Amino acid sequence: MADIFVQKQHRDEPKVSGWAAGIDVGGTKTLICIGTAERQVVVRHKFPTVHTKDAHFFFDRLFGELEYSLKQAGLSLEQLQGIGIGFPGMVDNDSGTITHAPAIPWSSQERAYRDSTDDRNTHENIRSIIAQRYSGRLVLDNDVNMAALGEQWLGAARGLRHVMMVTVGTGIGSGLILNGELYKGAAGGAGEMAYWIAGEEQARQAAEHKGTNEFGVFESVTSGTAITRSVKSALASGMSGTYMVRLAEGDRDKVGARHVLQAAAEGDIEAQTILEPALAHMAMALTNVISLLNPEMIVIGGGVAESNTYYLDEIRQRVALWTDIPCTIVPAGLGNEAGAIGGLATILGSTVR
Amino acid sequence: MADIFVQKQHRDEPKVSGWAAGIDVGGTKTLICIGTAERQVVVRHKFPTVHTKDAHFFFDRLFGELEYSLKQAGLSLEQLQGIGIGFPGMVDNDSGTITHAPAIPWSSQERAYRDSTDDRNTHENIRSIIAQRYSGRLVLDNDVNMAALGEQWLGAARGLRHVMMVTVGTGIGSGLILNGELYKGAAGGAGEMAYWIAGEEQARQAAEHKGTNEFGVFESVTSGTAITRSVKSALASGMSGTYMVRLAEGDRDKVGARHVLQAAAEGDIEAQTILEPALAHMAMALTNVISLLNPEMIVIGGGVAESNTYYLDEIRQRVALWTDIPCTIVPAGLGNEAGAIGGLATILGSTVR
Repeated sequence: MADIFVQKQHRDEPKVSGWAAGIDVGGTKTLICIGTAERQVVVRHKFPTVHTKDAHFFFDRLFGELEYSLKQAGLSLEQLQGIGIGFPGMVDNDSGTITHAPAIPWSSQERAYRDSTDDRNTHENIRSIIAQRYSGRLVLDNDVNMAALGEQWLGAARGLRHVMMVTVGTGIGSGLILNGELYKGAAGGAGEMAYWIAGEEQARQAAEHKGTNEFGVFESVTSGTAITRSVKSALASGMSGTYMVRLAEGDRDKVGARHVLQAAAEGDIEAQTILEPALAHMAMALTNVISLLNPEMIVIGGGVAESNTYYLDEIRQRVALWTDIPCTIVPAGLGNEAGAIGGLATILGSTVR
Repeated sequence: MADIFVQKQHRDEPKVSGWAAGIDVGGTKTLICIGTAERQVVVRHKFPTVHTKDAHFFFDRLFGELEYSLKQAGLSLEQLQGIGIGFPGMVDNDSGTITHAPAIPWSSQERAYRDSTDDRNTHENIRSIIAQRYSGRLVLDNDVNMAALGEQWLGAARGLRHVMMVTVGTGIGSGLILNGELYKGAAGGAGEMAYWIAGEEQARQAAEHKGTNEFGVFESVTSGTAITRSVKSALASGMSGTYMVRLAEGDRDKVGARHVLQAAAEGDIEAQTILEPALAHMAMALTNVISLLNPEMIVIGGGVAESNTYYLDEIRQRVALWTDIPCTIVPAGLGNEAGAIGGLATILGSTVR
């Protein structure tokens, strides 16, 4: 299942001044990139994420894949200036612990383990586990922060100093680059736009859901999951959804966010109506971010919105309607490689961290 | 009318390693502080802001007052390491121009002058005007950014790295200190929380008011002006408002935000009802700021809310209801001296600017 792409170094190419590995651990796939300080990605290696409750086993396998990738570039671990790894969860770079990461079994089971007899994986420290396999520089962060750094290093926001990256996928994530640096806040929690509230009803919901591992109120309207739920509910309530159903190969049960986005882009009014609340709330939130942070650019990534012109145009139009502070809103430039490339940036970028 | 307070330097005090002047130009009063690198404010001089359309005359008078203040400390302009000046408007520190500053006649008339024959004050550059009077280091910024720096240098947020300062007065202002530095955004516009929108109705209002010099939608619910408008409207619609009227010395026409705040703090239900939307929207916005930026502290200043325990307690309770991300919410520590002290901090603080 593993895809690998290697760009050979030719003898007459300029000398490489530094190597690093950037790794993006996703819920289903992991991507390893090997790159140079000259911003060349020379190896891309993608494979299914290992699902295990044993963190030691997880990193044994991950480092196996890393050594395989390095071999493609004729490199060894010792030649790397460092490794940057992004995870789908909250990551404390200092302590090396991961929380709120339902996609990673050995991190998210913490609460369950606490009350069980088998607690060997509780409070697993990634730094110490990796230290047994690699002693060089190691940067850990969440996947959206990594994606923001990737887009700033090699993507849509290359070289900009004030950038917000928003990912619209299963949930909503965001990463902030402010004054040229990743902004993480007091306890590494910055960028949790998913939990924004607007209005009394949302405030009531936030109070109910506080402290649970559930989706935030904002993402419960704007995420891909929300759009899917919304279209399913409309279909159940009698919406014909002819065009969306056709896009889902005639299967009403399979209609999801993807089909809504595509149909909306092709002018289907039903799909545009379904999408309306997600668009309105996202545009409102971005308007507020623009007022608060005055970023140069907002980069929109993630499976749902990334390459959908209708979504982006609608967002741009609404934002322009509500604020006259200039801010460029663009699709992500690196697709699902942004996280791994951000891992490279943490090691090879000029940004001081 | 001028108040002056001088703290004499005693001969046995440790030597001062640097002097600066911090100036806060307000709509009605201007405050000059002379201070040391050891964070001692040795002169405070307050006087009515000069209202003139002639910027040269304005700075002649301002520097007259500054020289007077310096004399109190036995200093001359040449002994200063620099001057930091805060203005009630948008300030471009590089170009030295001020916009959106209705309280300063020579800055806000720009558009009117453009079409008139008398355009000598158009595009007035403060830096070049001040350069004729002072050649040392000069930092210009808006008053709320200065207040945030003041609170971080000598006030409630002393030494913290991630701080939001919100001022609740005639309007709403905010200043951000992120990663230990003032955050100004791409074009110096960061902190414009006044323009936040929440919900369809507010979005419609924002679209209507965009580009005008009017209040933002968020501040049209949460500012002192909004609270005053709200209580006046309730009184006109038949609310008895007995206690608030009593606080306003029996004059129904004089009831304003100040009386609402005081009455609410003393348990008056009518006042608490009037205050409710302002509290709810402010708490919601601060909850969103906490989710997005994960600050250590939010400092609330400004005439309306600053020293009102009820207001602060209600904000704290609501925020705690909606998010479990920890953030300390405190009243400002420097009162209306924060801006001038922030001016000192821009020159004498360790923060690189």
